[in-house]
Amino acid sequence: MAAQAHPTLRDVPIGIEATGQRRETDSMGEIDVPADRYWGAQTQRSLIHFSIGNDRMPKRVYHAYGYVKEAAALVNAAAGRLPRWKADAIVRAAEEAIAGDLDEHFPLYVWQTGSGTQSNMNVNEVLSNRAIQLLGGVIGSKSPVHPNDDVNMGQSSNDTFPTAMHIASVLELEEHLLPRAEALASAIEAKANEWRDVKIGRTHLEDAVPLTVGQEWSSCAHQLRDALARIRASERGLFALAAGGTAVGTGLNAPPGFSREIAAKIAELTRYPFVTAPNKFAAQGSLDAMVAAMAALRGLAVALMKIANDMRWLASGPRCGLGELLLPANEPGSSIMPGKVNPTQCEAMVMVCIQVIGEDNAVAFAGSQGNFELNAMRPIIINAFLHSARVLGDACDKLRRFSVEGARLDQTRIHEMLGRSLMLVTALSPVIGYDKASAIAHKANDENITLKDAALGSGYIDEERFDEIVDPSKMVGHGVAGA
Amino acid sequence: MAAQAHPTLRDVPIGIEATGQRRETDSMGEIDVPADRYWGAQTQRSLIHFSIGNDRMPKRVYHAYGYVKEAAALVNAAAGRLPRWKADAIVRAAEEAIAGDLDEHFPLYVWQTGSGTQSNMNVNEVLSNRAIQLLGGVIGSKSPVHPNDDVNMGQSSNDTFPTAMHIASVLELEEHLLPRAEALASAIEAKANEWRDVKIGRTHLEDAVPLTVGQEWSSCAHQLRDALARIRASERGLFALAAGGTAVGTGLNAPPGFSREIAAKIAELTRYPFVTAPNKFAAQGSLDAMVAAMAALRGLAVALMKIANDMRWLASGPRCGLGELLLPANEPGSSIMPGKVNPTQCEAMVMVCIQVIGEDNAVAFAGSQGNFELNAMRPIIINAFLHSARVLGDACDKLRRFSVEGARLDQTRIHEMLGRSLMLVTALSPVIGYDKASAIAHKANDENITLKDAALGSGYIDEERFDEIVDPSKMVGHGVAGA
Amino acid sequence: MAAQAHPTLRDVPIGIEATGQRRETDSMGEIDVPADRYWGAQTQRSLIHFSIGNDRMPKRVYHAYGYVKEAAALVNAAAGRLPRWKADAIVRAAEEAIAGDLDEHFPLYVWQTGSGTQSNMNVNEVLSNRAIQLLGGVIGSKSPVHPNDDVNMGQSSNDTFPTAMHIASVLELEEHLLPRAEALASAIEAKANEWRDVKIGRTHLEDAVPLTVGQEWSSCAHQLRDALARIRASERGLFALAAGGTAVGTGLNAPPGFSREIAAKIAELTRYPFVTAPNKFAAQGSLDAMVAAMAALRGLAVALMKIANDMRWLASGPRCGLGELLLPANEPGSSIMPGKVNPTQCEAMVMVCIQVIGEDNAVAFAGSQGNFELNAMRPIIINAFLHSARVLGDACDKLRRFSVEGARLDQTRIHEMLGRSLMLVTALSPVIGYDKASAIAHKANDENITLKDAALGSGYIDEERFDEIVDPSKMVGHGVAGA
Amino acid sequence: MAAQAHPTLRDVPIGIEATGQRRETDSMGEIDVPADRYWGAQTQRSLIHFSIGNDRMPKRVYHAYGYVKEAAALVNAAAGRLPRWKADAIVRAAEEAIAGDLDEHFPLYVWQTGSGTQSNMNVNEVLSNRAIQLLGGVIGSKSPVHPNDDVNMGQSSNDTFPTAMHIASVLELEEHLLPRAEALASAIEAKANEWRDVKIGRTHLEDAVPLTVGQEWSSCAHQLRDALARIRASERGLFALAAGGTAVGTGLNAPPGFSREIAAKIAELTRYPFVTAPNKFAAQGSLDAMVAAMAALRGLAVALMKIANDMRWLASGPRCGLGELLLPANEPGSSIMPGKVNPTQCEAMVMVCIQVIGEDNAVAFAGSQGNFELNAMRPIIINAFLHSARVLGDACDKLRRFSVEGARLDQTRIHEMLGRSLMLVTALSPVIGYDKASAIAHKANDENITLKDAALGSGYIDEERFDEIVDPSKMVGHGVAGA
Repeated sequence: MAAQAHPTLRDVPIGIEATGQRRETDSMGEIDVPADRYWGAQTQRSLIHFSIGNDRMPKRVYHAYGYVKEAAALVNAAAGRLPRWKADAIVRAAEEAIAGDLDEHFPLYVWQTGSGTQSNMNVNEVLSNRAIQLLGGVIGSKSPVHPNDDVNMGQSSNDTFPTAMHIASVLELEEHLLPRAEALASAIEAKANEWRDVKIGRTHLEDAVPLTVGQEWSSCAHQLRDALARIRASERGLFALAAGGTAVGTGLNAPPGFSREIAAKIAELTRYPFVTAPNKFAAQGSLDAMVAAMAALRGLAVALMKIANDMRWLASGPRCGLGELLLPANEPGSSIMPGKVNPTQCEAMVMVCIQVIGEDNAVAFAGSQGNFELNAMRPIIINAFLHSARVLGDACDKLRRFSVEGARLDQTRIHEMLGRSLMLVTALSPVIGYDKASAIAHKANDENITLKDAALGSGYIDEERFDEIVDPSKMVGHGVAGA
Repeated sequence: MAAQAHPTLRDVPIGIEATGQRRETDSMGEIDVPADRYWGAQTQRSLIHFSIGNDRMPKRVYHAYGYVKEAAALVNAAAGRLPRWKADAIVRAAEEAIAGDLDEHFPLYVWQTGSGTQSNMNVNEVLSNRAIQLLGGVIGSKSPVHPNDDVNMGQSSNDTFPTAMHIASVLELEEHLLPRAEALASAIEAKANEWRDVKIGRTHLEDAVPLTVGQEWSSCAHQLRDALARIRASERGLFALAAGGTAVGTGLNAPPGFSREIAAKIAELTRYPFVTAPNKFAAQGSLDAMVAAMAALRGLAVALMKIANDMRWLASGPRCGLGELLLPANEPGSSIMPGKVNPTQCEAMVMVCIQVIGEDNAVAFAGSQGNFELNAMRPIIINAFLHSARVLGDACDKLRRFSVEGARLDQTRIHEMLGRSLMLVTALSPVIGYDKASAIAHKANDENITLKDAALGSGYIDEERFDEIVDPSKMVGHGVAGA
Repeated sequence: MAAQAHPTLRDVPIGIEATGQRRETDSMGEIDVPADRYWGAQTQRSLIHFSIGNDRMPKRVYHAYGYVKEAAALVNAAAGRLPRWKADAIVRAAEEAIAGDLDEHFPLYVWQTGSGTQSNMNVNEVLSNRAIQLLGGVIGSKSPVHPNDDVNMGQSSNDTFPTAMHIASVLELEEHLLPRAEALASAIEAKANEWRDVKIGRTHLEDAVPLTVGQEWSSCAHQLRDALARIRASERGLFALAAGGTAVGTGLNAPPGFSREIAAKIAELTRYPFVTAPNKFAAQGSLDAMVAAMAALRGLAVALMKIANDMRWLASGPRCGLGELLLPANEPGSSIMPGKVNPTQCEAMVMVCIQVIGEDNAVAFAGSQGNFELNAMRPIIINAFLHSARVLGDACDKLRRFSVEGARLDQTRIHEMLGRSLMLVTALSPVIGYDKASAIAHKANDENITLKDAALGSGYIDEERFDEIVDPSKMVGHGVAGA
Repeated sequence: MAAQAHPTLRDVPIGIEATGQRRETDSMGEIDVPADRYWGAQTQRSLIHFSIGNDRMPKRVYHAYGYVKEAAALVNAAAGRLPRWKADAIVRAAEEAIAGDLDEHFPLYVWQTGSGTQSNMNVNEVLSNRAIQLLGGVIGSKSPVHPNDDVNMGQSSNDTFPTAMHIASVLELEEHLLPRAEALASAIEAKANEWRDVKIGRTHLEDAVPLTVGQEWSSCAHQLRDALARIRASERGLFALAAGGTAVGTGLNAPPGFSREIAAKIAELTRYPFVTAPNKFAAQGSLDAMVAAMAALRGLAVALMKIANDMRWLASGPRCGLGELLLPANEPGSSIMPGKVNPTQCEAMVMVCIQVIGEDNAVAFAGSQGNFELNAMRPIIINAFLHSARVLGDACDKLRRFSVEGARLDQTRIHEMLGRSLMLVTALSPVIGYDKASAIAHKANDENITLKDAALGSGYIDEERFDEIVDPSKMVGHGVAGA
């Protein structure tokens, strides 16, 4: 074939200048689509049959699919299976998809075919028509770049949709959630390092022995760091890609080596360490890596919920609560009670956490419902995962900026409560024994007197020794490890 | 005050012809808002502090709030607490909100304050500014219609938000979900009445004794009717409204009788039998009626999932599955396997059901997290409820139109399988006893012969008697009730 | 047949005096069973194949099955299908099962066949052998009372197991859970009526306007009453019985009218209003009535969790918490902190509630997994339901006896906090407007002064008027309804 | 004190020869306990106040606690804080607890104090009294070995209970679940290696392209191996122990270095790589490592559910299902349908999986409910975890022995179905293009003819080429990786 025999790739801006309808076809026949959209017949059929609610497949899935299509085209071209000029056009269109420039051409709903085929075909159709446009062809003609034969070459929805799910998940974690959650952890750590006041500890909601405010906040930071480490660990499963398994995992119609090559190419394009999945049947018949990654998100939600609850309880008041913490007032709190300020960022975070726990529940359920060579519950899982990562990331960002960073301590109140506590008696226990120490505490409580008065009254200890031992500043340990 | 002393209500079309920003104020100070929007300072603060994900408070909540504000204005005016001309302006604005005409002025996110105060204030601000506009005042001046003192008169977010939740839920059920689910049940009933073929029953996925196709489908219809009856029963809890309890349930700042009057007015406006809740403290401190209504939605999801699964299994094939049912082919099923048709409507339905079950899990969790006089998990609950009702309704509609109504039976295959089954032996059991009948079935299975051959070979029964007893058409009972 | 031709029913005490093994048979052949047990071959096979964990099918299921077998024998005898002397023996054995006297002969695990067939056969075998014993026959001989042909006459596991599930559930509700939950609600109501002190309300955990302690507790009682009403309403679904549907719902091998007659007989024997299910295919293919009843239990758990949490927060302290409530000290609270007392009954209740919510989640999942003519997830559902009802009932009993009834108020603290609150400013709002009232509250908070000082300092109101309006006792409304 | 001044450790067999009651005391006063039990006052109080259901704290927790108490005694003795002779007695008693020999002295319920204090005190009391007995003292006298001052030295429930939870969890995983799940995976792998027949693949339950039976089963094995790897990875969190943090994480009353030393001693005694937790505040205030480990169990349940479902569907029939797989018949399947055999092991497994998913949901919920220095939801979490691991392990064992190992293929049916499939057309797609291949498949389906007849009739391909390309044995790829 002479070099000039093929069409030339031209710089055509994105968009189709047309109005009304365009006739597109697929194996079921003809159908009209909006003339200014790149999508084709199968996308249009899906729009008609699956307009359920207003939940759209997250755009991140299409950006990820862009990488899949680009990588496939490059691998196919390198092997001589796809003419270079076709590949170039597909690559250009795919890069536009990756950049989000074709977002409005990916309109499909979450609640569609369980394999994600309709979204894969949406991508195939849009990239085909865009490539045709770039090559000067007739949009809708499937020539010279066919959605199935060219854009989908060596692929199936069954292997590429889970591939796109994994890529999209990694992108969302790395580029959205993790940085925001890390920033929150760092902000909390900064407070932990700054706040060294000794305060009363609480277990069972009841007064316990003292610790420092910093120790308390170090716990939050540590929980977050652990949760983030678990999310990162869960990415290992996401890095394994099904691409190359095609229809049922055998790799039918994909050439030998294709799975390894496309994974390597995707790794190169995204700069994340994607590899080919060791067993394609499992990679397509199950969604276990997604279920595990979602569990890691849930782990973060579980930690954040405890943290947000602690914050709002410590800030309760202003006059009739615990009142140790002062949260920034971002807005009036009540339509009827003038001057009320509420821990609304914490409430939003708690709700987000419950939402994520609920979506995780749906993901586990869906993950269990695979049959044979396909788990046809993919759309619900990727939607729940990306949504959860998104709202968690945003909520971390908001909590940090509007609640943690501006938080202050009410040191007067902290000090006052510490002084009142009866549980400082615990320090006496190794000296006079648990039973005598217990009697002192009960006496103080029943008679509503101070611990010191009760201790001295008990005759078990003298004042000098009491003052030496019952010193909160000595009771907070040698460091956060309590070692 | 002379009648002409007050401003006149004028016909001003919806919309503010302005660009740039407008200065609004609240108790925290000044803030700029988009000049072409009706909302005020508190809405704007919420937009800044709570832009989490892209989940917006469902518009249905604002339409419901329109009824609350309209009813409050009418009751307050009737009692002489609010000047009639102010009430008229508020009513006009509220009716525009009910009609959805102010939707774009209600931009807030789901993840906000747990009481819904920000959405209540959004409504108060929008109705206030719109009423001011209608009365020729200066938008943003809070005069002559103040968002708190006038639009929110006798109200609190704490009582009106759950009131709006209940109204919105009833509207969504009555005007969206129930009609669509009823239509699906009717379509299934039509099939149950039409399809009288005798087919093999299956228990444990294994061949069992026969029944008619119609009996099998009557089961689906019956499940749906029961589920819908449970949803309707759950509405009883939703008809009880918190309005009038104000901040903590005592009705502070609301006049005597207000709660009963506003509930009656809402009933009159909506034409649903709303009443005042018997205990306002429970109505504001808990969300139990919502949790119960959500459980009823989940019950529908549980039923629909079984039905959709049965449909796709019965339609499995075309050559290597059960193959009794032929579902309409709405779209090509595979990007790689030409000619493949999949039960995609059923898959979408199954995913929707799992989603609803997951959201119900979140609702129960959130419902348990109330404290003292407020359950501050309202936004997640109303969002999950309205979303679940919406997608269930849409999925019922799609399943009916694109899968049930066009379904056909493969009668050849149904008849063929019925003839093969060994479990027709059950009819022999009352005659020759369970143990001998069992021996015949095992013999047929082990030797891969027909039941009749095995029966005659056993010597336990002769041919004439066998033919008389083992007649599938006699084995399907006298009716769906098996009575 | 002459009257004396049949064996005579004799008074044989329960128990088999034998040691070692006895040979039993079923359609799969011979197998040894413990000689002192009534069960037969199929029970023994199940014990071998399903010893998973140590979860045994709740005994309540077997008591319920006793009613089913007794009713079936009576109906069959009345119709002349079963000889009266056989029926008499079966009835005697069934009544022993109902009374719990045969409990040790029902050893099977929860995790068995999904239809419950093994438990049905356990009952058939035990009642058969016990009836044989009562009639002087040879245990294990299946004569003169055959487990399948006689005890199971007109029945199938597929219809009788869900029947026994419904009966067992109603019994557990009526005889265990409901009385204990009612008693808790009454104990809380007694406190609500007794405690009339005015206290600070709390919304968002933050100080709000006042209410009485009794109003607060009336909310708890009301939540419980509502939850119990929902449980009772869910019983309506449980009263519908599948019995008579036999294998797939057609009633094959059961005579006409059997389903109505057996339901009527069960109603007579149990004195609960059981009726035959209107559609046997749905009654056997789904477990929707169980899913709905379980949701009602969950509703109770959701309410109880809020109540138990409120109790432990109100009791938090003794010196550094909210401290309004004094719970009885039932045990030392800490192994290291002498004198510590914790709200352990509340904690146990919260954990029980979470357990129930988790089990409800499993029930909904299982309820969705039916296929065709059978939902083969019955054992998990009945186990979860009965377990949930049991622990909820016990936890209600314990909370009432060991926490609610002995609770006292710390009236000094309640009064002290009420006096401090800034939210009493709300009462000023209708008089001076929301904005001015808000300014006063902010001033008091910022300057850490009393509300009164801030109000007078603002110049918006004079002392006499302030004292008249800002009177907590006037702010708690006219009654619990806030009407 | 002279060396001989202390009591001598004697060989006293386990057990107290006494009847009736014994008087024990704690800081709340006196209480009678059964004279033949080692437990003391606090255990007895718990039995009275927390008899909720019949759920007992799993014995594994007490075995694990034995390690904690033994390690503490050894570390305390080595540091000279505890006399060696006391330590020897405690160690002896602790080893008896580890061996399970004291199980009947640990009667407490799951639903107790949320910190597990009552179970810790149960251990302290039993080891104290047993040590006293071994040293010739008076049981109940707390001398010479005091439950708090000696057995609990340097400890608190708040740090030791989560320590025992982690140890118990690791033991249950390593000694129960993992070996059984591994054995199941190996049995499935053996089948995957043995079964090389080419069969029809299925996606969306619909016929797809071929793969080998071994490939299909390799997917199951791979899912299991992945799930087990995730469980092992989750153990890393469990290896970190809170011991040494004492009451709130500061290590009050524990000497410097104690936390590292006790973790090292526990590692030595158990031979598992336990270490001290880096942040004790997080280790006591959260249960995040347990939540993550539970998620890993859930992951196994999700995989097993898919596998068990596939097995029962593939085995469905015998005449009217998919019928590719023949499962062993372990018991009669029906009380009414003679000769019926059902996939009961698969059903039991599915129910176990749903139970685990439900319990995981409860664990996540409970994990989110910590407050300040304690998550008081420990008992529900350890109970759910140990129960889930137990039933999963047993169910794996049963599925392997009674279903997988005896499974056989129906090769005739597998071959027959493969020959019928239309999806072999996919192999033509790269040769003639997707659109033409699709037309052939539709033609074959519509006219109910073979794929070959349709292909030749289409004119798109000749017979020789068809036979060369459409060869299932060439379509199953080069290996499981589809590479």
